[in-house]
Amino acid sequence: MESLYVIKIGGNIVDNPTLLNTCLQSFAKVKGQAILVHGGGKMATSIAKSMGVEQTMVEGRRITDEDTLKIVTMVYAGYINKNIVAQLQALGVNAMGLSGVDGNLIKAHKRTHDSIDYGFVGDIDAVNTDFLLQLLSTNIILVVSPITHDGRGQVLNTNADTIAQSLSTALVSKYNVHLIYGFEKEGVLKDMNDPSSVITHIDRPFYATLKNQKIINEGMIPKIDNAYEALDNGVQSVIIGKAEKINELMNGTAGTIITN
Amino acid sequence: MESLYVIKIGGNIVDNPTLLNTCLQSFAKVKGQAILVHGGGKMATSIAKSMGVEQTMVEGRRITDEDTLKIVTMVYAGYINKNIVAQLQALGVNAMGLSGVDGNLIKAHKRTHDSIDYGFVGDIDAVNTDFLLQLLSTNIILVVSPITHDGRGQVLNTNADTIAQSLSTALVSKYNVHLIYGFEKEGVLKDMNDPSSVITHIDRPFYATLKNQKIINEGMIPKIDNAYEALDNGVQSVIIGKAEKINELMNGTAGTIITN
Repeated sequence: MESLYVIKIGGNIVDNPTLLNTCLQSFAKVKGQAILVHGGGKMATSIAKSMGVEQTMVEGRRITDEDTLKIVTMVYAGYINKNIVAQLQALGVNAMGLSGVDGNLIKAHKRTHDSIDYGFVGDIDAVNTDFLLQLLSTNIILVVSPITHDGRGQVLNTNADTIAQSLSTALVSKYNVHLIYGFEKEGVLKDMNDPSSVITHIDRPFYATLKNQKIINEGMIPKIDNAYEALDNGVQSVIIGKAEKINELMNGTAGTIITN
Repeated sequence: MESLYVIKIGGNIVDNPTLLNTCLQSFAKVKGQAILVHGGGKMATSIAKSMGVEQTMVEGRRITDEDTLKIVTMVYAGYINKNIVAQLQALGVNAMGLSGVDGNLIKAHKRTHDSIDYGFVGDIDAVNTDFLLQLLSTNIILVVSPITHDGRGQVLNTNADTIAQSLSTALVSKYNVHLIYGFEKEGVLKDMNDPSSVITHIDRPFYATLKNQKIINEGMIPKIDNAYEALDNGVQSVIIGKAEKINELMNGTAGTIITN
């Protein structure tokens, strides 16, 4: 089977034009099929601020009220998505941007929770694999923003790491899928303050140890959980590392590889 | 040849959720191939205001400075586009949103003018017809936002009427193309204040007369000029009328038909 890379780039990359451009230059060198999933970043927060829309965070998560949903839809699916696509086009990559709404790519439902109302946050129900395969067969490079819908006209805000994992697992029957989580750090670090302390390989027992010893911080745990969800569902490999080093992450000379 | 309808809906429709929903319900009944092009509306202006971004108008046209470009990219390609697509999906229409940036669909150049700096306004150079035909062959319904790019990474703000006309003329070799300009009025009116004064048919000599007699107002002239540009390039018919009456405009029981 042909290889396919699903590459997620985080909000801190998207926020920084120089980092983003370096990252896209690296992405442009990827041979063969690839999907780029981008996160949101601080731009939504700063636009909310300038519009006087208050942002509520509960346990580190943004509550997506109606005004915030409007802003993230604008920023993620509009500004960020189209600017990434325009930059990739300029780099000779025939890219197309889309959200989970388009072609019913990602259907989700509004999150329900016993005590917290997350607002218009979507948890994924289904990926439209046929549509995805149809698009990929045209050899176009897809750039996906983390906006989904419920099929009844409601747009929803969805975690970009989870979108990358869901798209990856949806494609395992047709491709050897590799999932890359690109962010601002070199990989999973033993010491948060030492960029050279990259843990090059994490398997399940080691992951348990790292969690027990509290070496892995809270922000990293959902990412690695997503990685295991992907591996459990047939994804070949998951690599976490610096978004500007996509090529090195692909050839195993940088980042942290997660295995079973 | 198969028929294809390119239907443009104006900003006043997009601004009004009730009108927009009626219009999309009407659009959902269209049989066969269709492309929906949407304009921008006042939402960009109100968001600019709430963000403290001043809007400059010169001769009735918005000057697209850097901040305004950011806002229109967010609002048109993000908020409006994704919400229209989500609503169409809810109505059972398999729609996909895209801008002129995606798949290099519409390449443009920054407008140059002797005395006015329009800012980041794009005049269209080329439509990627192959890509458009490839998408249409999958029977997906395309929803196009009026954002284009210059191929060098710069996103541009482009007139939606002109986009509808350019997409129409790009497709005449493969389809019998019909172009519909849907807006808030019943059609081209003899008396601006009398909605029943629709001129049902305008040909070139009559258009010249209407212009000479100043019966057609300044806002309508570029629309009809676009209509003639389309007809000159092989589009079968152009109809101007109420956006909520797409079906009636299609079967000739409402609106103004423009012919040579």
